[in-house]
Amino acid sequence: MKAAILAVGSELLGTDRLDTNSLRLTALLDRYGVELRRKAVIGDAEEEIAAELRSLLDRVDLILITGGLGPTADDVTREAVAAALGRRLVLDAKVLAAIERRFQSLGWAMPEVNRRQAWVVEGAEVIPNPRGTAPGMRLERDGCTLFLFPGVPAELEGMMTDALEPWMAERSGGVARETAVLKIAGLPESVVEERIAPAYGEFGREAITILANAGEIRLQATAAGPEPERRTRLQAMVARLAELAGDAVFTTRDEDTLESVVGELLRAAGRTLTAAESCTGGLLAQRLTSVPGSSDYFLGAAVTYSDELKVRMVGVPPELLAEHGAVSEPVARAMAEGVRRTLGSDYGVGITGIAGPGGGSEEKPVGTVHIAVAGPGEGDVQHRKLRLPGDRDRVRRFSAQLALEMLRRRLLAAAGSA
Amino acid sequence: MKAAILAVGSELLGTDRLDTNSLRLTALLDRYGVELRRKAVIGDAEEEIAAELRSLLDRVDLILITGGLGPTADDVTREAVAAALGRRLVLDAKVLAAIERRFQSLGWAMPEVNRRQAWVVEGAEVIPNPRGTAPGMRLERDGCTLFLFPGVPAELEGMMTDALEPWMAERSGGVARETAVLKIAGLPESVVEERIAPAYGEFGREAITILANAGEIRLQATAAGPEPERRTRLQAMVARLAELAGDAVFTTRDEDTLESVVGELLRAAGRTLTAAESCTGGLLAQRLTSVPGSSDYFLGAAVTYSDELKVRMVGVPPELLAEHGAVSEPVARAMAEGVRRTLGSDYGVGITGIAGPGGGSEEKPVGTVHIAVAGPGEGDVQHRKLRLPGDRDRVRRFSAQLALEMLRRRLLAAAGSA
Repeated sequence: MKAAILAVGSELLGTDRLDTNSLRLTALLDRYGVELRRKAVIGDAEEEIAAELRSLLDRVDLILITGGLGPTADDVTREAVAAALGRRLVLDAKVLAAIERRFQSLGWAMPEVNRRQAWVVEGAEVIPNPRGTAPGMRLERDGCTLFLFPGVPAELEGMMTDALEPWMAERSGGVARETAVLKIAGLPESVVEERIAPAYGEFGREAITILANAGEIRLQATAAGPEPERRTRLQAMVARLAELAGDAVFTTRDEDTLESVVGELLRAAGRTLTAAESCTGGLLAQRLTSVPGSSDYFLGAAVTYSDELKVRMVGVPPELLAEHGAVSEPVARAMAEGVRRTLGSDYGVGITGIAGPGGGSEEKPVGTVHIAVAGPGEGDVQHRKLRLPGDRDRVRRFSAQLALEMLRRRLLAAAGSA
Repeated sequence: MKAAILAVGSELLGTDRLDTNSLRLTALLDRYGVELRRKAVIGDAEEEIAAELRSLLDRVDLILITGGLGPTADDVTREAVAAALGRRLVLDAKVLAAIERRFQSLGWAMPEVNRRQAWVVEGAEVIPNPRGTAPGMRLERDGCTLFLFPGVPAELEGMMTDALEPWMAERSGGVARETAVLKIAGLPESVVEERIAPAYGEFGREAITILANAGEIRLQATAAGPEPERRTRLQAMVARLAELAGDAVFTTRDEDTLESVVGELLRAAGRTLTAAESCTGGLLAQRLTSVPGSSDYFLGAAVTYSDELKVRMVGVPPELLAEHGAVSEPVARAMAEGVRRTLGSDYGVGITGIAGPGGGSEEKPVGTVHIAVAGPGEGDVQHRKLRLPGDRDRVRRFSAQLALEMLRRRLLAAAGSA
């Protein structure tokens, strides 16, 4: 089954509002294995709405429409649907009585404008709306089903549960669809794509999605069909993708973040961490402490933004700064070792770089970043030099992300050799 | 001029992501008086995209397409646009060279898949993308203009500024509608609403918008019409709103952030700042250092997440911790004074609190936060105790925000008395 969602309302075409109703509807479609082909937002314009519906009728099996069922003259979804289907609007006496009763129970006389809400498209099954005045409708036309819902989220929600979900459950025979996630850090999207390419052939290209965002890749695998085949297939996909992507996969749990995974590794090893940050200015510490319970393994950080504080807070030798400059491998190493020793943790991270826009030179352009991870033993320091693209914000976010990924690999190696 | 927005990407048809790019594009359309007729989200399906474009070509004058320009096989926007216009795709040698250079500068060989991004629709003007590999395109067809942009927000944003806005400015003969902004920190939305209520009557309710987000209120005033009346009216609105909202307004420049305003005040006074952060875990330092050039006034921070580090890094007396607990007024004050003295700055901030979800008690529930600002003189410390609502993330963000607002007021007072 293929579906489309249409949100009606000029307010949804402004600069500060999005159609969030579609997310709820999508979740329901997903659960019953219905493929969402497209969604659209259209203003309160009868012609536009009708044209969209006409073009959808032949292409999808299910059209979910929200909004434009209110009592005022700018609510034209009823008219547009009737026009698209070539049907009349008829006054439904039962609906009118229900609206009148609703106003009575609130101690009001029904305003004349609300009569409009009692007009229904000929042939529609009315869907009651106990939370508001606008009833919904279900319509059939040549194998395509249309649902009309009000745009008010609470009203829509109730009618989804009361009318849409039972209809879908019956139609689909309970068949569902499930998604699994693999998260990857420290690799470009195209490298991940090359690695997992064989899985496209094995499971179908559409079953696998790649999303990239700020140094993190999200692989999504989707399986449809009845149980237990669906679950088995999903497990096989996850296993295969994990095998292809290798140890770059840091989690297969959607709720995990790279900082929570690093935290779990530290907790499991009974180790503690500190950080000395220059160009990231506290971003790494902020991410680590965003995890509830992080005080169990994260002691603190020195944000050594000035050269003097690199010396005073974590004991970077002044001669290293003078000889190599603050953005250099020796200083990153000294920061990592220094923060570990000074603040008394098992592991220490040092990050120093040029985030821009100023401060770059030919030898050390903007985006030059040195990251070092020290510990748990004395003198045991790893270092990585990066040349990151992008603006200040991006360089900083990438740096923190890659420092976490270095830590993760260091902790995994330590766990493996323990 | 009538416009449509089309966002391409199967991930935008899922249950957890919305097309937020369209809000940015809509704001730009708004400024130039272009009417947005509809927006749609379509998956990575060539046929669907092409069909949508064909139906739009006769109905609007401007089509803005985002997404689907990536290197992987599921990125099919290029192909779909070519099909809809009946044109070929041609390999652009200059674009290919730019992509290769980009990978070289990162120290990678260009993966073969990225070649796809060098194919452009015949007749397109290529729009450079300095922030990513996918170039954009501008195409003309029978009076309708199509723009193709990548879906990555930072890349889109840059190309909007570089290519779309200049094109629109030329086409429309200048800005038709203008918005001015006033930003406010440290006040609840309802208080701001009450203060500015008289302006609704004077300028019309629709001309003024209030948006609230994490301890910051954004007041927007909008004026339409020809110059010079528009500018005059906008200036009058800003002046009146500033008068009504009072000294809670920290800026009337949209590019300013609370941290950049605090930075400017420090720079103007020739003063330096350090911070000792516990519950915010580096968030304040991260915000302060997100401002280019912040090394002129921000020396660094101590993220003293553990009690021991509160003692070792900034000299909080252990007896204070024992007697009052880490989340207390005396400890916040000792952190602010301690970091100022230890790290050698004019001003020092101390933040200690319970961000949750764990760690709360009857006496000190989750959301209890103490903030202190010390300096510039010895013993000159201000303190504020807060009971913040919301989850861990919200408590942390509010705390950093209110610390910055305390600093701003302290610096303003110091500037006034100097």
